[in-house]
Amino acid sequence: MASTNVVGILGGMGPAAGADFVRLFVQACAQQMRARGEPVRDQSFPEHWLAQVPVPDRTDALGSAENGAHQPLEPMLQALGRLAALGSQAVAIACNTAHAWHARLQERFPQVELLHMAREVAQHLAAQRAGSVALMATEGTYRVRLYDQALADAGLDCHVPLAEERRIITRGIFDGVKAGNMQLAEACFSQVALQLVQRHGPVTIIMGCTEVPLGLQGSAAVAGLSLVDPAQVLAAALARRAYRD
Amino acid sequence: MASTNVVGILGGMGPAAGADFVRLFVQACAQQMRARGEPVRDQSFPEHWLAQVPVPDRTDALGSAENGAHQPLEPMLQALGRLAALGSQAVAIACNTAHAWHARLQERFPQVELLHMAREVAQHLAAQRAGSVALMATEGTYRVRLYDQALADAGLDCHVPLAEERRIITRGIFDGVKAGNMQLAEACFSQVALQLVQRHGPVTIIMGCTEVPLGLQGSAAVAGLSLVDPAQVLAAALARRAYRD
Repeated sequence: MASTNVVGILGGMGPAAGADFVRLFVQACAQQMRARGEPVRDQSFPEHWLAQVPVPDRTDALGSAENGAHQPLEPMLQALGRLAALGSQAVAIACNTAHAWHARLQERFPQVELLHMAREVAQHLAAQRAGSVALMATEGTYRVRLYDQALADAGLDCHVPLAEERRIITRGIFDGVKAGNMQLAEACFSQVALQLVQRHGPVTIIMGCTEVPLGLQGSAAVAGLSLVDPAQVLAAALARRAYRD
Repeated sequence: MASTNVVGILGGMGPAAGADFVRLFVQACAQQMRARGEPVRDQSFPEHWLAQVPVPDRTDALGSAENGAHQPLEPMLQALGRLAALGSQAVAIACNTAHAWHARLQERFPQVELLHMAREVAQHLAAQRAGSVALMATEGTYRVRLYDQALADAGLDCHVPLAEERRIITRGIFDGVKAGNMQLAEACFSQVALQLVQRHGPVTIIMGCTEVPLGLQGSAAVAGLSLVDPAQVLAAALARRAYRD
């Protein structure tokens, strides 16, 4: 049995997405074992820790004055420090928008490899030879252009929804998933996804907020579309770090 | 907004069950907020930590000599100590069989309230005025009579499967859920559940191993049966501790 590294997951943004990230990570670890021809046993999973801590809303903070942008950083720094103290060699952040603080978090804890969701997704899409993509995300993620550089580096063209469609996505995130109204979430997200495909053709849609896949899971309305879940891609990347010799 | 307590989840037994326990806990927290008439927001969830650590198989250890029984205790003690150091006021163990070590874990960390799954389930069933129950569990859980005292205290009569049925449950747990073969798991678990009801009438079935509900989720074969998920009951109990003023 290969020795494994301890890894951490920084969650709570929102908590349902953090829980789902652990599920995706456990699935990705089982795939690692199968790919190595090892039996899947409880004891072959790497030690991993999930921190779900209250963090002020990321998009709100990015939209306000300079002081606002510091609010989410402090609890994330504290949780990341604790994950590092628990022995985590690599940490994934289970929130797209929170990656606006990725550089500052990584800078403070250079001993931990802090994965970057957008870069992992861009590499994944480039390997799959995706052509055009469209990004469904929070206003905060659009504002800091989180995916722009990574997608451009991978040679991928990215479409973004119209202002009205972005408002519908925001409604699905906050009044839908975060408030527990999954029917509303599905209606909002599927409407925008279908409009993106009508306008731009068969693009791959990046569900670039961890709440979006939770709302679209099992949705018949988008069954034919090409969707990529950044949390799943990131969970697989974290599993590779855990099993790296 | 009510102030919340930090709580912990001791998982990894198996890891998929630990991930599912966080999902159930997050749902239970949302229900707490709704019951209090508060909006469900990311920032209103209590800080919580999940430790998923490799722990030797609990049933194996309980079946071997005295030395064997110490093997699962050490990693659980270490993880519980770390959850306590992170500030956890209450901790839930996301594994039925691991409760064989509950008293020794609680004794070492008296400052933490270590919930007891079987006692929470017995109280829950007594409040629901369940009559007879049947227990689907690991050989280890049967051997240490984990549920017997708690169910007897609650005035509940408990049926256990026959030896051959217990072997089928074990197969569903290890060759099914833990190995990622969910189809096998569903076939094993549903067969035993149906036989229990045929033999004992409309009993409430305690899915007394965290792998059983994972295998029976969405199973049409057992759609009409009365099933209780101890992980769900325990997650609700942990959420009550988190929101206790």
